[in-house]
Amino acid sequence: MLDIKALTFDVFGTVVDWRTSIIREGEAFGRDKGLEIDWNAFALAWRGKYQPAMERVRAGDVPFTKLDVLHRQNLEEVLVEFAIDGLSEADKQHLNDIWHRLQPWPDSVEGLNRLHRRFILATLSNGNVRLIVDMARNAGLPWDMVLGAQIAGHYKPQPEAYLNSAAVLDLAPSDCLMVAAHNSDLVAAAACGLRTAFVCRPGEYGPTQDFDQEAENDYDVVADDFLHLAAQLGC
Amino acid sequence: MLDIKALTFDVFGTVVDWRTSIIREGEAFGRDKGLEIDWNAFALAWRGKYQPAMERVRAGDVPFTKLDVLHRQNLEEVLVEFAIDGLSEADKQHLNDIWHRLQPWPDSVEGLNRLHRRFILATLSNGNVRLIVDMARNAGLPWDMVLGAQIAGHYKPQPEAYLNSAAVLDLAPSDCLMVAAHNSDLVAAAACGLRTAFVCRPGEYGPTQDFDQEAENDYDVVADDFLHLAAQLGC
Repeated sequence: MLDIKALTFDVFGTVVDWRTSIIREGEAFGRDKGLEIDWNAFALAWRGKYQPAMERVRAGDVPFTKLDVLHRQNLEEVLVEFAIDGLSEADKQHLNDIWHRLQPWPDSVEGLNRLHRRFILATLSNGNVRLIVDMARNAGLPWDMVLGAQIAGHYKPQPEAYLNSAAVLDLAPSDCLMVAAHNSDLVAAAACGLRTAFVCRPGEYGPTQDFDQEAENDYDVVADDFLHLAAQLGC
Repeated sequence: MLDIKALTFDVFGTVVDWRTSIIREGEAFGRDKGLEIDWNAFALAWRGKYQPAMERVRAGDVPFTKLDVLHRQNLEEVLVEFAIDGLSEADKQHLNDIWHRLQPWPDSVEGLNRLHRRFILATLSNGNVRLIVDMARNAGLPWDMVLGAQIAGHYKPQPEAYLNSAAVLDLAPSDCLMVAAHNSDLVAAAACGLRTAFVCRPGEYGPTQDFDQEAENDYDVVADDFLHLAAQLGC
């Protein structure tokens, strides 16, 4: 059994299913506004601008900017690309806030509640605090603490994000198990000394996704979902 | 009705009853170690060193130091004053960690759960994050976020502690209702633009307490306990 005290979680894609959440809300929004949009393509295009936007922060081209602001800048570009115009400020805010209302994978809430009995559960996400707090209240996610990019002032996979999160909890990195559906996140966490758990979310990007289909390295835990993770940790 | 989005809470004395918690744990510890100690006096002496220790940080005499460390430094002094010697490192750690296991006032958990349905609940305490997280897990306190001194890098009543807590939640100070049993905390919060709620805990320091027996200023809410606070906020 791993000797850990806390689990730190990637959120987008690992805990919540951003793609189908955006499709569902987008379709409702589109019906209301009379828009004919491929919301799956819209979701993927919006998410596709996520890493480049953070990379400008990581590279120091712009000061640290919280994800809500990056999401909104990216939304403006996607709206142009999909030829959606005439939206009000309230409409744009409603769309941007979809990220605050993302729905969990079917196993997430039960798995987290089981894990919560034994371990400190913290987010270690690039989402800003208010986004993660709103999401948790909406979806019933039992976080003990919201950590990650905003508190650290650095976006993953920069080491400061992982090291600050452990330090805020007065833990050594090796007391923390980083849980993610993305190999790159776990490689970066392991380089900082965190333990690692890969949870497979093969349909995060839809049925044609051809990456992150399996654990590509030797992680401490590999799980099919959060219930499988909980069982392997004795919860 | 107040137009607020979050409640920010003082914790020691407002949410939890540090004095009787220390007495209860101290008495059990004393029985185990064969010590004859006035644990009420011990608790008051330990707590009495709290403000002076933080004042050295506020004055810039020492860099920001988390409360667990200040508590431990103060404990060493109190042990000398009460002529308790020969304790092991594990014993001292056990005593210092009492602060992580403080028990809530009888109305706290139910009141917070009622308030949680409608409002974001954050701690705005001088306690460090791990202390507050451990306490919440032990006592069942439904915080959405742990904020305050460690995240802000400043101890209350310095304005940075209040202003940082609102800012991390992407809220204006006036969107936040500061809840405390201490007039001085609410005066400082109000000066930063937060709304204020005084919750009366007249026995925090024991039956002879002669301060903070009532609201000494014109706060937005004055309540007998957290159930009364919840009722006044429509929860």
